[in-house]
Amino acid sequence: MLLDLNLGFVILKSASMIQLFAKPVAEKIQKEVKQRVSRFKLNYGRLPKISVILVGDDTASRIYTQRKGELSSLLGMDHETISFPMDVNPELVRDRVRNLNDDPKIDGILIQRPLPKTFREEEVLYWISPDKDVDAFHPVHAGELLLGLPTFRPCTPAGVMELLSFYKISVSGRLVCVIGRSSIVGKPMAALLLQSDATVIQCHSKTQNLKELTRQASILVVAAGRPGLIDASYVQPGATVIDVGIHRTQDGRLTGDVRFDEVAQIASAMTPVPGGVGPMTLSILMQNTILAAERRENKNSSLLISAE
Amino acid sequence: MLLDLNLGFVILKSASMIQLFAKPVAEKIQKEVKQRVSRFKLNYGRLPKISVILVGDDTASRIYTQRKGELSSLLGMDHETISFPMDVNPELVRDRVRNLNDDPKIDGILIQRPLPKTFREEEVLYWISPDKDVDAFHPVHAGELLLGLPTFRPCTPAGVMELLSFYKISVSGRLVCVIGRSSIVGKPMAALLLQSDATVIQCHSKTQNLKELTRQASILVVAAGRPGLIDASYVQPGATVIDVGIHRTQDGRLTGDVRFDEVAQIASAMTPVPGGVGPMTLSILMQNTILAAERRENKNSSLLISAE
Repeated sequence: MLLDLNLGFVILKSASMIQLFAKPVAEKIQKEVKQRVSRFKLNYGRLPKISVILVGDDTASRIYTQRKGELSSLLGMDHETISFPMDVNPELVRDRVRNLNDDPKIDGILIQRPLPKTFREEEVLYWISPDKDVDAFHPVHAGELLLGLPTFRPCTPAGVMELLSFYKISVSGRLVCVIGRSSIVGKPMAALLLQSDATVIQCHSKTQNLKELTRQASILVVAAGRPGLIDASYVQPGATVIDVGIHRTQDGRLTGDVRFDEVAQIASAMTPVPGGVGPMTLSILMQNTILAAERRENKNSSLLISAE
Repeated sequence: MLLDLNLGFVILKSASMIQLFAKPVAEKIQKEVKQRVSRFKLNYGRLPKISVILVGDDTASRIYTQRKGELSSLLGMDHETISFPMDVNPELVRDRVRNLNDDPKIDGILIQRPLPKTFREEEVLYWISPDKDVDAFHPVHAGELLLGLPTFRPCTPAGVMELLSFYKISVSGRLVCVIGRSSIVGKPMAALLLQSDATVIQCHSKTQNLKELTRQASILVVAAGRPGLIDASYVQPGATVIDVGIHRTQDGRLTGDVRFDEVAQIASAMTPVPGGVGPMTLSILMQNTILAAERRENKNSSLLISAE
């Protein structure tokens, strides 16, 4: 159908499509975090500090961990990476996390995923004390999010909300379709959107007639983890499309769950991959870390971010 | 439109509509709970015990509390009701709950709602220790539910799932519309349905074009708290309609969020009000109480009900 459009129309649509780049949004958040870190240092005479647990030697995990450290430094925070070999006894890591929970110098702790198969994820989720759980993976945080209580927001879904807000794309009262139901993206994403008064359709691998549903949505958030799943036939003309997927193609390029070039012809706004959702995650992690530090120093901190 | 149908057709449709009565489902669950209570008594030489906190003298609350006590007794469990006057200092109630948390003879605790305005709900949610929180109102339970981890299931949404399962109405892969987003029904309902592989549309007061969405659903769960909100024009012919609402009319009858007589003409299955969802809630509460007792006595209990 799209192939039938005349060239003039295609160019017109392309020109009017807004790319939702993370850069200005991430910079805004990081600038604000940096100011809060300075104030924190003045008020409490120490730096906020994050501890990252890294198990094994997965290359991607090592790169992510390194980036977390670099950005922490850039924003004036202290950080450490605690590495364990692939074959470490999980109990040893658990004990180390407990020590960090009790360590007054540590404000945020995170355990880099994926973990070796010897770790039981449903137990690891409870290891980090909620007040230091800057990834917001602890079930109590998922529950607070669902119930609309003050809490840490999970990084990637919160990043999507910040992107939408920065580019003034309102979700209230609008039909939003979320594809995916992972614990890290799909489920908390739907909860955050609902909190902001969106009407949410949550789709997943068992959904029948996916296209019929996605085509009704004014905003489509794709976190399916399947490269190129969404082509233009899934998208309502004029919709906003958020692509949470990131995959490396055989020829080394990065690509998302959405076929960018094709969908760009009919969407009104769209995140690029890379440079869209990806960089938001790390910025929210930094925001959660300074928030954790502030909350620990001042239990009545008015800086608490609510899930609303 | 419905009024135009000829009488024969109306009778045919009415006759084929299945009413989803709670009675056989509740009896089945209660029978199973009773057996587990007997076994528990044999194994541990004591009765499972539930404590209900009642603040003020709201008539409905008193009736509900009484019913909880009666059913506990009927199923062989011990119970107590701890009453406080309307103007009690919330801290006094909190301290009493803490004592119950520490009391080894108490397996389940619940705080009857509504509470006086002097109580801050967002604090009360955390009072009951999760292992005794048989209403599953603690945020950690909401999170476990959302993430699909083993947990206590919130009573009303779990009751709806049991009804659907008993009457062999499959939700997997089907489009289910939930109207309402309360912490007690709408949100956990959507989470449970998603866990069972439904594609879920969550609607609420800010939803636009509600009718367009509800008419697409094979199963409609109405928990809007608005008497008579849903007439036949909201319902897809042949759909299953679950009515969580319960209201008393001016002439003293009980009625739901759904206009029963009208919707009964086109739905294939429907819960009556009263006698549909209502009685399920109390049965699940009893199930959660024996589960809490079993878990406390045997941390590795294989009887743990998962959110799946």
